[in-house]
Amino acid sequence: MNKNVETRPLALRLEFISLGDELLLGLRPNSHLTYIGRQLAKFGHTIQRNVVIRDQPEDIARIFSESWDHSDVIITTGGLGPTTDDLTRETISEIFGLDLVHNDDVEKAIRERFAGIGRDVTENNLRQAKILDGAEVLPNEYGTAPGMWLRKDGKHLVMLPGPPNELYPMFEEQVLPRLQAEGLIGSGQAYLQVRTCGVGESHLETKLQPVFDRAGELLQVAYCAHDGLVDLRLSSLDERSFSWQQVEEVGDECREILGTDYVCFGDHSVAQLIMQQLRALGRTVAVGESCTGGLLSNAFTDIPGASQIFAGGVVCYNTAAKVEMLGVPDSLIRQHGVVSAECAAAMATGVSEKFSTDYGIGITGIAGPGGGTCSCPVGTVFIGYHAPGGVWSHLFRFPSDRLSVKSRSVATALDLMRRKLKESEMEDVLSSMIT
Amino acid sequence: MNKNVETRPLALRLEFISLGDELLLGLRPNSHLTYIGRQLAKFGHTIQRNVVIRDQPEDIARIFSESWDHSDVIITTGGLGPTTDDLTRETISEIFGLDLVHNDDVEKAIRERFAGIGRDVTENNLRQAKILDGAEVLPNEYGTAPGMWLRKDGKHLVMLPGPPNELYPMFEEQVLPRLQAEGLIGSGQAYLQVRTCGVGESHLETKLQPVFDRAGELLQVAYCAHDGLVDLRLSSLDERSFSWQQVEEVGDECREILGTDYVCFGDHSVAQLIMQQLRALGRTVAVGESCTGGLLSNAFTDIPGASQIFAGGVVCYNTAAKVEMLGVPDSLIRQHGVVSAECAAAMATGVSEKFSTDYGIGITGIAGPGGGTCSCPVGTVFIGYHAPGGVWSHLFRFPSDRLSVKSRSVATALDLMRRKLKESEMEDVLSSMIT
Repeated sequence: MNKNVETRPLALRLEFISLGDELLLGLRPNSHLTYIGRQLAKFGHTIQRNVVIRDQPEDIARIFSESWDHSDVIITTGGLGPTTDDLTRETISEIFGLDLVHNDDVEKAIRERFAGIGRDVTENNLRQAKILDGAEVLPNEYGTAPGMWLRKDGKHLVMLPGPPNELYPMFEEQVLPRLQAEGLIGSGQAYLQVRTCGVGESHLETKLQPVFDRAGELLQVAYCAHDGLVDLRLSSLDERSFSWQQVEEVGDECREILGTDYVCFGDHSVAQLIMQQLRALGRTVAVGESCTGGLLSNAFTDIPGASQIFAGGVVCYNTAAKVEMLGVPDSLIRQHGVVSAECAAAMATGVSEKFSTDYGIGITGIAGPGGGTCSCPVGTVFIGYHAPGGVWSHLFRFPSDRLSVKSRSVATALDLMRRKLKESEMEDVLSSMIT
Repeated sequence: MNKNVETRPLALRLEFISLGDELLLGLRPNSHLTYIGRQLAKFGHTIQRNVVIRDQPEDIARIFSESWDHSDVIITTGGLGPTTDDLTRETISEIFGLDLVHNDDVEKAIRERFAGIGRDVTENNLRQAKILDGAEVLPNEYGTAPGMWLRKDGKHLVMLPGPPNELYPMFEEQVLPRLQAEGLIGSGQAYLQVRTCGVGESHLETKLQPVFDRAGELLQVAYCAHDGLVDLRLSSLDERSFSWQQVEEVGDECREILGTDYVCFGDHSVAQLIMQQLRALGRTVAVGESCTGGLLSNAFTDIPGASQIFAGGVVCYNTAAKVEMLGVPDSLIRQHGVVSAECAAAMATGVSEKFSTDYGIGITGIAGPGGGTCSCPVGTVFIGYHAPGGVWSHLFRFPSDRLSVKSRSVATALDLMRRKLKESEMEDVLSSMIT
């Protein structure tokens, strides 16, 4: 192990064990990890690690032998079902040398549940009434398998059911409050998120390192790149010596330095921010897409209430559609081609006219894998932007696979519009005061 | 450990280690597990376990001490980035006592990549040219971090980059062929996948159980529901006594029984199948969308070569756009409203006329969360279909959240078109012979 590298201390050593062959076979995403990770992050805690194992006695035994000594809390999900291939309960009873004891309250709840849906209780179902000796029962309002909370050796083993509609309410209503009551997690805001766009992780680090150096080693900084954005999470390692207000001051400094690369504090998407701003201005937008094929429209229409601001869009997947549906002049296409700055600008203006909107975005390019040429390789994309104050058109290159070209073009178009709106914010306010 | 329970033997002990705080923080789903799990399942292999850890030296060291002895192959993803918090390379070099040596070819590739996008190479970026002594370099066509393949103690350590557009091609083009060449995984097909749509998992089981009962207990059947589809995976538990040909015969029987609920053998998407069929017929399609907001266009344009068949689409997010861009009669909207079977049909016909295509799809509905009424609650969706042989329009109800209404509407529209094309296949062939 590298002793020279400082590692962040973990206040709480929490391991999360997911049981389920279907996760390892790629049949289903491990959405429980995303869910529980997010729940704990709200309170400033990170899962130390997540292990996905088959629901097999040997695998369960192995992970407990490896994880028990390294953890304060172990959470398991799955393996509590009624069928005979759900062996978690039995395996853990053997590992810890604890009997499985029949619990009358659980049996009663199971019988009531089955009576409610008019089905008979089978012997298998009653296996779910067996509880580890000494464990606390976590009642399951939405299913037959109760959760269990075992306190042992000063540690906590929390066994939860797998179905999301049973797990989520149990986690929020029973697990989180108990973790807080035991003093294992706090209840305050954990970090300040500074969302950025347009600057890579390493450039960001170079740009902001002087700020972080000045703040000192009690400031904790984490980077997370996703969907064309890089999020910075700022937190304090010791709030007595480095207060939340100091964290916020660092955030403000970052914002200053980043200029238009700063997107927001928190986690709004760029499309959401554009929508908010257009709503405030009482303005509207429409989009004309070629290589992104509807993905930009889709980003806008994912936002509730979009219809007041987003008028619509046209996907022009051939030349005739660009001329007929968006009014791009035939002569312009003959002179410059469909993959050109001129065509992107004409698409932006055209769609804005057709839908009678204030703003328009036009995207044309080559998503591949076919269709590239020497001068116009796959990944060549022109983005046009039409605003009340003028028209712009930019060339971008995203040498990549088809789906990445699409998603990067959309992220870039949205960021372009966000920047342009920011730049024209002042002008816009002024012009609306005059008219 | 419970000794009474038989566990399935694992031919290959493969552990998959995912590095990334963002997974543990719930910022991103662990899609690599789904991807790699699925890739290996094709060849009949299951990942033994997946461990998600923080990119911290202590955590990396711990997992290697626990996993190395229990595995034949360890695959890692992530942690190879350019910033100083990506420590995997350094940590593993210390664990195995192997130097990191500078590789000129990798540096050259990095420099060429940066020159191509017109950016400067930083010192950080050149860290990615350091390779574990003795490891084979897996070139990265889509990014700066190369993969590494280390053979040691008769075992294999395969380190891969985290970004999906870099990982996926590297896994399919370089990792799978090497695993096969080393004899670690087979190359034969492990199961026959029967893709179905429009019938739930338990109904499917009821319908097909007689076939499976006749086939006997050497036939293995697994169900997987996703994206509105249910996949059946048929395999043999012992190919000497139940041959691949017998598996295929069972597949054919399922196909017969399922009728139009059968989609295909293998894993083509419904949009892909529609494209294939339209290409064979020399026909084209366009789409008019309201509540799905571009998601249907996007599904078609995700497919390489779509532009020959998919002419384009219009997203009409307000009433005026439906009239002006798609030619839906004003009087029709006054009489029936925009969320009606009539409007959906008019949108399908209108878009087909505007784009001069043979087929048209129109979708109008209420995605929510606002906008629902008693007679038209959130999730009410009409899908119109225009074909050379006529026009159809259907009501669907998807009581759900906004994004689910969108995705279920698109899946349903695609399945509707698939079924209609299947029904008219014979007619179509005949009519094209006459004309």
